[in-house]
Amino acid sequence: MSYDLWYWTGIPGRGEFVRLALEAANIPYLEKTRRAHDKDQALVDDMALPRDDPPFAPPYLVADGVTIAQTANILLFLGDQHGLAPRDAAGRLWVHQLQLTIADLVSEAHDVHHPVGVGLYYEDQRPEALRRAAEFRQERMPKFLGYFERVLKRRGRWLAGGKHWTYADLSLFHVVEGLRFAFPRRMTALTPQLRHVLALHEDVQALPELAAYLGSQRRLPFSDGIFRHYPELDGD
Amino acid sequence: MSYDLWYWTGIPGRGEFVRLALEAANIPYLEKTRRAHDKDQALVDDMALPRDDPPFAPPYLVADGVTIAQTANILLFLGDQHGLAPRDAAGRLWVHQLQLTIADLVSEAHDVHHPVGVGLYYEDQRPEALRRAAEFRQERMPKFLGYFERVLKRRGRWLAGGKHWTYADLSLFHVVEGLRFAFPRRMTALTPQLRHVLALHEDVQALPELAAYLGSQRRLPFSDGIFRHYPELDGD
Repeated sequence: MSYDLWYWTGIPGRGEFVRLALEAANIPYLEKTRRAHDKDQALVDDMALPRDDPPFAPPYLVADGVTIAQTANILLFLGDQHGLAPRDAAGRLWVHQLQLTIADLVSEAHDVHHPVGVGLYYEDQRPEALRRAAEFRQERMPKFLGYFERVLKRRGRWLAGGKHWTYADLSLFHVVEGLRFAFPRRMTALTPQLRHVLALHEDVQALPELAAYLGSQRRLPFSDGIFRHYPELDGD
Repeated sequence: MSYDLWYWTGIPGRGEFVRLALEAANIPYLEKTRRAHDKDQALVDDMALPRDDPPFAPPYLVADGVTIAQTANILLFLGDQHGLAPRDAAGRLWVHQLQLTIADLVSEAHDVHHPVGVGLYYEDQRPEALRRAAEFRQERMPKFLGYFERVLKRRGRWLAGGKHWTYADLSLFHVVEGLRFAFPRRMTALTPQLRHVLALHEDVQALPELAAYLGSQRRLPFSDGIFRHYPELDGD
């Protein structure tokens, strides 16, 4: 069967975590993009979703008439259906826990440039963003990335251990990509402390099953989505 | 078997979402509290968790030597183990999706008083908090709560439909409690728009299986955790 993946067009955004899993597992899917900034209601109408259960926000995966929302929830589903996570209960929960921790990091990375509110432009909350960026770079980035570094140091090449990547490994790869785009100076400064995380990044980048996608036009560049590069928010 | 629930002491915090599920389902558990503001490493050491997999942050549930972290992940586990969510795949994913949306709302409610950084005191980010609070009250609270209102309007008494509550219903109850504590004026103003959400709140409050817990000393009052009452951040 083929899935429909609904997400804003023009940005990788949270849809990219789902896209990487679908692509790496060679799962057929149809990209159903929407223009950014459409009203949610319009989105729902155009998607012809079950009118009684419009999801809260994209991305959504439509599978066999069932609409699944929330990025980590979609990955949980794909992990179960397509073996992108361990089969045993403890392994499944471990990978989902890591994915939810990645989701927390992603939200904080977004809030660096929108500390006051999603409804305002960055330019309208620049002083607040400068303050939040300082803490994010100095405290939050080392705390989150250091956590994944410790996990990998103990478990090995992949976050769940074992010989095969899981959807959480693909997501951590994308987070490193995003943080390098948004905070290049800080990521360079942290390099010595992130040997295992950066090795995982290289291992995912080199996956044969991702080569076609990573080299394709379908892979959207970072721009004004979650990960944004404002030089004044970066630093060593 | 009995579970160990590890969380900071002194605040309901995210641990309360887990506690409500354990209490309502009459699942035996041991409260393993920690003093707030301990260093994470100290926490991990004292918990004698598997040293190779310290979780990122509390709450953690320790079950049969397996440590499960991330609130929504713990509830997913409890839902499966104890029938606190539908058994079918679509129903499980739907309830988990709602829980993750509740988690997003909870994070935003926290960031209202900590828009610049978790490492700073509220008093050090008061001007930023005043700006963020305005958007949270005017845009985010109606958007999130209005979403759950629409779901209930269509599904009925409980978020998953059907005759029995799920862990997401218990969590929505606690979110209403928290928002009423933190933003009493705003919640009063929104009352006419939240008929179904507030009915669910009353239904959970009246659950016989929760009566003992809700009336006990074990239920911690809101204070300086996620939901905080700063009159200057509230408004109609």
